[in-house]
Amino acid sequence: MDRSRFVIESAEAEQMAKQSGRTVHQLLPSLVKSAQTLARPPISKFHVGAVGIGSSGRIFFGVNLEFPGLPLNQSVHAEQFLITNLSLNAEPRLKHIAVSAAPCGHCRQFLQELRDAPDVKILIASSDDEKENKINNNCNEKDQEFTPLSHFLPHRFGPDDLLPKDAPLLLESHPNGLSFCSDFSRSNTEGGEENLKNAALDAANMSYAPYSGCPSGVALVDVEGKIYKGSYMESAAYNPSMAPVQAAIVAYVARGGGGYERIVGAVLVEKAEGVIKQEDAARLLLQCISPKCEFKVFQCKQGI
Amino acid sequence: MDRSRFVIESAEAEQMAKQSGRTVHQLLPSLVKSAQTLARPPISKFHVGAVGIGSSGRIFFGVNLEFPGLPLNQSVHAEQFLITNLSLNAEPRLKHIAVSAAPCGHCRQFLQELRDAPDVKILIASSDDEKENKINNNCNEKDQEFTPLSHFLPHRFGPDDLLPKDAPLLLESHPNGLSFCSDFSRSNTEGGEENLKNAALDAANMSYAPYSGCPSGVALVDVEGKIYKGSYMESAAYNPSMAPVQAAIVAYVARGGGGYERIVGAVLVEKAEGVIKQEDAARLLLQCISPKCEFKVFQCKQGI
Ligand SMILES: [Zn+2]
Ligand SMILES: [Zn+2]
Repeated sequence: MDRSRFVIESAEAEQMAKQSGRTVHQLLPSLVKSAQTLARPPISKFHVGAVGIGSSGRIFFGVNLEFPGLPLNQSVHAEQFLITNLSLNAEPRLKHIAVSAAPCGHCRQFLQELRDAPDVKILIASSDDEKENKINNNCNEKDQEFTPLSHFLPHRFGPDDLLPKDAPLLLESHPNGLSFCSDFSRSNTEGGEENLKNAALDAANMSYAPYSGCPSGVALVDVEGKIYKGSYMESAAYNPSMAPVQAAIVAYVARGGGGYERIVGAVLVEKAEGVIKQEDAARLLLQCISPKCEFKVFQCKQGI
Repeated sequence: MDRSRFVIESAEAEQMAKQSGRTVHQLLPSLVKSAQTLARPPISKFHVGAVGIGSSGRIFFGVNLEFPGLPLNQSVHAEQFLITNLSLNAEPRLKHIAVSAAPCGHCRQFLQELRDAPDVKILIASSDDEKENKINNNCNEKDQEFTPLSHFLPHRFGPDDLLPKDAPLLLESHPNGLSFCSDFSRSNTEGGEENLKNAALDAANMSYAPYSGCPSGVALVDVEGKIYKGSYMESAAYNPSMAPVQAAIVAYVARGGGGYERIVGAVLVEKAEGVIKQEDAARLLLQCISPKCEFKVFQCKQGI
């Protein structure tokens, strides 16, 4: 199993679809099972896979992650992983998703942050063999019907309730204009750390935080010196927000990172005077998954 | 405003309904606005109220709570507050809810833990004055239609997907059989602390944790020596679970507690060798809302 197969390029996706006589989005259910094998759910042992196609024609994978030793609200669901994966790859729109289990309400809520969220098409792909065979042998494929998200979460509470109509949404460009507050840095960097620190600032600049006004970003570095960036992403309903350290762990998993203990350094960048703070929660998670990881925090400011 | 009015007894509810020529559940929308005034949302300033009626005929209030200085996933939504309030008052069933805003997906998911969740009836009560007047002047009250939760979260992921059919659900009796592991106590108690410690064990024994097998409970004590208990409550979808310290804060607010700085002591009881741990997250929240609160943790074991 190639661990880094969390994105399929559009040319390859089209090729695969052609070979199986389907359209690309009809291909998604057949990929769910291989996505499930990439999940990391040590608590539930319940492997969830989500496979989505974006407006570029690329296919993205998402899986669930669970972290023993912490509360359950630190878990990452497959659909959230998928959206984070789109964000990492600058994919502007999600069109269709196939998932291995009914999306939970928390994820249906998180998906509301996408432009035209009610129109995202969802299919719950049963992974049991009987159905699989049926699908493979049945050209009509009646079971493979996608249903819009508006059906899964009617009367939604979402960005429309809190933001101006023209506000940029998740996956859209929203430059945050952040820079370091040199006076407030908690720690000083040495040469090699500069890259990590700048990566975290980049991530914070891509963060989607229209509700709190507190963008933040995390950059991780592994034993090989490879850097992984994660941007904080908010939900209008607050609780389903994706923390920056979780987003960076998604990047680590999606880009071929192995065991979490290989993460040796982490930097968080957040605002000096924010109404919310990621620092303590990020430290707890990192201590739990990689006790030797060195964690630093740098504060930033918005505007000039 | 009487801060402790988070429960209306059934006789009083019937009296109120009679006076207004309605049934008790038709009364709920008219109470939403007064629930909203009890919310504590310093981040969003978005006051949410939820008013529900249980099978006993009692009416329960729920409001949203937000905690500056922490990540947004520490927030308590009005619907979760409401369910916690039912649990505190040993109410076995929720029948109808009226809410001031469309319930978010996170809450629709949390509600799935109730017996016959799909049949819980929900009404989104607009709080703008125009509609209020219309409702008050219109005997048909067409706007006040309750809709079952199954409509708000179709194709649910819930307890049915993970638990045996006859497993006790949230608000049902599920004695956990916990007792202290004397050897593992992190701290020793003095006389006055014994009550607080036992209250936390009681709360842990009422905790609903069928997914992790890690029940837990928190007891808080205020400057006047009044004790407030909160039981951990899990969601099949993990993230919407209600942490024990949040549940205890709901008890504090619902039973007339004032500013959080009046909370001077807290005890958490959880399992010695659990796959999840509440301790660090509970400490962070308490430090944030009441920096002088003394926090102790005692470990417990299940069975003999
Ligand atoms: Zn989910
Ligand atoms: Zn909610």
